[in-house]
Amino acid sequence: MTVHLVGAGPGDPELITVRGLELVRACDVLVADALVAQELVDEAPDDALVISRRGMTQEAVTRLLVAYGAAGLDVVRLKGGDPFVFGRGGEETLALAEAGIDFEVVPGVSSIAAVPASALIPVTHRGVSDRVTIASGHGADDGEPDYASLAAAGGTLVLFMGLERLDRLCAGLVRAGLPASTPAAVVSRGTLPDQESVSGCLDDLPDLAEGLASPALVVVGDVVAIGAQITSATANASPAAV
Amino acid sequence: MTVHLVGAGPGDPELITVRGLELVRACDVLVADALVAQELVDEAPDDALVISRRGMTQEAVTRLLVAYGAAGLDVVRLKGGDPFVFGRGGEETLALAEAGIDFEVVPGVSSIAAVPASALIPVTHRGVSDRVTIASGHGADDGEPDYASLAAAGGTLVLFMGLERLDRLCAGLVRAGLPASTPAAVVSRGTLPDQESVSGCLDDLPDLAEGLASPALVVVGDVVAIGAQITSATANASPAAV
Repeated sequence: MTVHLVGAGPGDPELITVRGLELVRACDVLVADALVAQELVDEAPDDALVISRRGMTQEAVTRLLVAYGAAGLDVVRLKGGDPFVFGRGGEETLALAEAGIDFEVVPGVSSIAAVPASALIPVTHRGVSDRVTIASGHGADDGEPDYASLAAAGGTLVLFMGLERLDRLCAGLVRAGLPASTPAAVVSRGTLPDQESVSGCLDDLPDLAEGLASPALVVVGDVVAIGAQITSATANASPAAV
Repeated sequence: MTVHLVGAGPGDPELITVRGLELVRACDVLVADALVAQELVDEAPDDALVISRRGMTQEAVTRLLVAYGAAGLDVVRLKGGDPFVFGRGGEETLALAEAGIDFEVVPGVSSIAAVPASALIPVTHRGVSDRVTIASGHGADDGEPDYASLAAAGGTLVLFMGLERLDRLCAGLVRAGLPASTPAAVVSRGTLPDQESVSGCLDDLPDLAEGLASPALVVVGDVVAIGAQITSATANASPAAV
């Protein structure tokens, strides 16, 4: 009779944790994010109640977790990435705690590093970047992000939900002081079989990224050039590599 | 004949990914970080060559990966956390790529969110923080970090290697403009059986954290207060919870 908030990882179903998969395989109720791999949903026991979160408000999801938890069932709330990184897991655990329901948070591989890694971009690199800023590509209430503080952050920027308005995002960062030549990449559907990525600089990224699919991450900073260096060394050394 | 850079996760051996564990179980050579759980090292096949990275320079580790990879062996380089988040995985992949050796990066659960989560602190929370800055608690060449930009970052700060000089770190952030009352926590040995955490504010954190063991993360920002709220709701609702 515990609600487990489990991170499913960035997309590839094999990137769930061992503990997370064990819990999915033993649950009474599975409440899964729309973006979670079907292979993981299929791991729930045949007699488990499987509920897609698609189309539900956050409040409805939270009420559901409290209700099934209170009923004494073993509930897995399977979330894309990590429950506590842009996952609204704090809201769900707070509601469970206030309702007196046991819960557990099982972290997952967040897309913030795994998606850049799928394009061979390390988010930190010795002598190049020792700082990472993770933020949304748009501000609260669908407004503009705070470009000034993003441009001043230094190190690597990893931006969620930036693809839809990439022109504005890149232009905003340049206006706020980042050189137009700052290396920048978009990684689309990272870790999935149909992943794609492009890398260039703030200037040409919107053109390069034309037609890429969501979900996607935008990475800005000199580590993007390191990624390009790794990719190009791989291609030159051996066409079969990676 | 591939070198796999595998993230072992934040400490708890069950937080390795399914894919990562599969690779460990099938490798010819395992090169493991000193902090990786012994349970994971023990998963290597009986006839695998198991090498601890303890006491080796980064250059020696990189040379070893290139040598075993070139010899056609299946090598797992098992790293704490995620290979591409403060893991020097970029250096290792670059050397492998330049040597023409196939490699793969298998991301892991980074401690940056999993360790705060183990103390019930979500690094983002709706209406409280939608930005996370990850940095080292000390600067390059063991100097001071850039307090000004850390204090100006906004949102949540997650600082590695900050425990040893917590006084200076907290004082530096206050001097650079963060209120002394900013919520702050230290999470020691997060996700391990002997994990401990304390939370307070920049003012009293160094006293509160006296005696805590490494490795530890420092978390600064209003999400620390959310974590305290979740913990306290849990304790009030049911002593058995969590």
